[in-house]
Amino acid sequence: MDNCTFVIFGATGDLTKRKLIPALYQLVAEKKLTNFAIVGVAIDDVTASDMLNKAREFIEPLDEAIWKQLENVTYFQRVDFLNEQDYVPLRKRVEEAEKKHKLSGNRMLYCAAAAQFFCPITTNLVASGLAKKTAPDAKPWYRVVYEKPFGHDRTSAHEINECIARHLHENQVYRIDHYLTKEVVSNIALIRFTNCVFEPLWNNRYIDQVQIILSEKVCVGDRGYYYDKYGALADVVQNHMLELLALVGMEAPELLKGDYVREQRAKVLQKIEVVDGLLGQYEGYLQEPGVAPQSKTETFAALMLRVNNPRWAGVPFYLKTGKCLDKKEIVIHIKFKQVDCLLAKNCPSDSNWLTIKVTPDATFTLNLNAKKPGYTNELVQMSMEYCHSCIFGQRSAEAYEIVFEEVIRGELAAAVRFDEIEYAWKVIETIRKDHFSLYPYKQGTVGPTEALQEFSRKHGMRWRS
Amino acid sequence: MDNCTFVIFGATGDLTKRKLIPALYQLVAEKKLTNFAIVGVAIDDVTASDMLNKAREFIEPLDEAIWKQLENVTYFQRVDFLNEQDYVPLRKRVEEAEKKHKLSGNRMLYCAAAAQFFCPITTNLVASGLAKKTAPDAKPWYRVVYEKPFGHDRTSAHEINECIARHLHENQVYRIDHYLTKEVVSNIALIRFTNCVFEPLWNNRYIDQVQIILSEKVCVGDRGYYYDKYGALADVVQNHMLELLALVGMEAPELLKGDYVREQRAKVLQKIEVVDGLLGQYEGYLQEPGVAPQSKTETFAALMLRVNNPRWAGVPFYLKTGKCLDKKEIVIHIKFKQVDCLLAKNCPSDSNWLTIKVTPDATFTLNLNAKKPGYTNELVQMSMEYCHSCIFGQRSAEAYEIVFEEVIRGELAAAVRFDEIEYAWKVIETIRKDHFSLYPYKQGTVGPTEALQEFSRKHGMRWRS
Repeated sequence: MDNCTFVIFGATGDLTKRKLIPALYQLVAEKKLTNFAIVGVAIDDVTASDMLNKAREFIEPLDEAIWKQLENVTYFQRVDFLNEQDYVPLRKRVEEAEKKHKLSGNRMLYCAAAAQFFCPITTNLVASGLAKKTAPDAKPWYRVVYEKPFGHDRTSAHEINECIARHLHENQVYRIDHYLTKEVVSNIALIRFTNCVFEPLWNNRYIDQVQIILSEKVCVGDRGYYYDKYGALADVVQNHMLELLALVGMEAPELLKGDYVREQRAKVLQKIEVVDGLLGQYEGYLQEPGVAPQSKTETFAALMLRVNNPRWAGVPFYLKTGKCLDKKEIVIHIKFKQVDCLLAKNCPSDSNWLTIKVTPDATFTLNLNAKKPGYTNELVQMSMEYCHSCIFGQRSAEAYEIVFEEVIRGELAAAVRFDEIEYAWKVIETIRKDHFSLYPYKQGTVGPTEALQEFSRKHGMRWRS
Repeated sequence: MDNCTFVIFGATGDLTKRKLIPALYQLVAEKKLTNFAIVGVAIDDVTASDMLNKAREFIEPLDEAIWKQLENVTYFQRVDFLNEQDYVPLRKRVEEAEKKHKLSGNRMLYCAAAAQFFCPITTNLVASGLAKKTAPDAKPWYRVVYEKPFGHDRTSAHEINECIARHLHENQVYRIDHYLTKEVVSNIALIRFTNCVFEPLWNNRYIDQVQIILSEKVCVGDRGYYYDKYGALADVVQNHMLELLALVGMEAPELLKGDYVREQRAKVLQKIEVVDGLLGQYEGYLQEPGVAPQSKTETFAALMLRVNNPRWAGVPFYLKTGKCLDKKEIVIHIKFKQVDCLLAKNCPSDSNWLTIKVTPDATFTLNLNAKKPGYTNELVQMSMEYCHSCIFGQRSAEAYEIVFEEVIRGELAAAVRFDEIEYAWKVIETIRKDHFSLYPYKQGTVGPTEALQEFSRKHGMRWRS
């Protein structure tokens, strides 16, 4: 991998200590990262050690020798993101680090900050010379990473995109959806397109419906102030869930990499139609710290979408997500159509399902009908499983380790293109305009039970669990 | 299940003690068989106890109470199969047993005898009134079971069929291929036709080739005298292997039962073309007891066949079988076509295979390409497996238990229809006419190595192991 300097905006924040520093530590431990520097940036008055030490508890097990390696190349610079002047000493700090550690000038500028800072940071980075607009393959490279949420609606996302486009080439821009780097998620496209057995079935002739479920057991906790401004739709549907849908639904790209994949994902997102939906809010949400007393923010959503193209005409895509539910699970269920029954009796009562579990296990499971042992032509449901997370002795890389790796390699497929973001926000905008009802639900349940039953009845579907 | 009397011709033979009596014992143990009688028939002068006792060592574990149940309903009658007069006391013996055990007169007449006796036994059964030609659903029923080999070539099989047809309705005739009753074999059609995911792929657009392999470790042993007259082609290709091919290749029957299935199997067998082949004989075969000193009988065969219909045009079916080989295995490998590679590098080096293992395990395995954990877009081969014989706690029924059950139920699919037998013999006849070379091979190997390599090279194929 190329050597580089990581400049982290938001160095004293939650993401940095919980995910970014631990991921960098791991890359060092695995010797994938050998020649690099880290420059933490925030408005707070802290030291590099302060910043690093807050991450220690999230690294397990921690090897002091590797930690020392990290300490030796880590710096901190106090910067007001909005103050252009502050970027001059930051540039100096970065250049000193590059000189001291004999780096080539490659820079990964990581915006672990709120979306309102994306435009000012980008503008100031380029104005100060910390980053430059370059051709895709230029050396040294300048790559800017933006964390989600990328704006709060279609208009704000568009404005940020416009601002970024003035300063950087789109191929320098990494709008991160870390779900796209999860092992089993990147496996979806590989399994679809490197095997002969799935793609012929992957269309409305054989697929009956798709269900994408993202359930969380946790409630909003101490994120109330942030969460109440977004809600489930903006927090997970707009990004993670629609990107999963796009991966499942996309046409074959010319190559399974970079912009070829993004182009195909964008085409799916562009064709999404919102058909029906219901929203929910868990009982007790209004009492959570940071939540507005009369808040109408949804903590639950069940949606029926369509993808209006020849491959998916007539196939419903059901999405369901919520906080404070009965279980933690991220899963995609693909239901194949029922076949004509050739049996005189005991016809199969359920069809075939391909289940892709993202969390807690990373597995692919194919549910089939087979012969009940010892009984003529009676059927049982059986399953063939591939457990990505358990077959290989090797530990799977954490999402953020892969984020760093992919950005260093210049792999764009794990990042979301400007138009994907805007199409996805458009879907959320449509849902908001539809004013779906907001139902209360009890904590630790499956959501608003009666409303869900009515939804199922109406669409003749059953959520698979 | 209907009550019935089992009349076993060849009651002192190998099959009776090794398979038939143990299967009946098992059906009693499982309480599937409660009201029945057994009448053993042979030219030997033995008692019912003699006959039964020879089977004891093949039953494990043996429960004396169940054994006693069997003894109480078992009789023996000495009969010269060719002597019409001997069938009069046999009928009397059967009728007495039916009266004593309050049976309804249903009779399963089981010819565990050589094919030369099939016509005389059938003729005499009907002449003596032990069996009657009846409509398919008549009560009581008379069903005659014929063990393989059914003749020794197409002409002899045809003659037996003609003889049987004069005396019985085809639906009273059960030409047994006990492979068709093996759990995983009857699962082939069920899995193909009760799931949405296989049938769309099951044709020459997606399937590259089919391999059917039946390897035996054992040599001819004490069966030399019998085996030398038949050879591998007549012993296993004509029946087991071609029936497996027919099951894999057949079109969807209207119903997955009885004559609907046989009709479709027959259509496949009718369309088989022999393209290429090689034969082998293991070193030391000529010294086996009972084998002719200059014997040219094959103990090994590798064949390339085609099925000339729209579904299979262009798809080679490779068959390989032999005795005295390096392993015992019965397996069907279905190779799917390679997909266009969408990866910039590290394209999949092997395609997808569906493997159906009949022996030693009963498993379905789907081999796929998947992501190598932790590495962007590198592939590994993974497999999804369904183990029919190990998932269910329950013991799988032995083939002959199912033979008895299916005949009692009047299920014809496990039996081979008159035309199937003749089409299959025609294939063997074609192979014999082609005078494929006979190569020697060492015992305990994969067969005639060099000739096999030449065969693989010529056809651009590789035997999967």
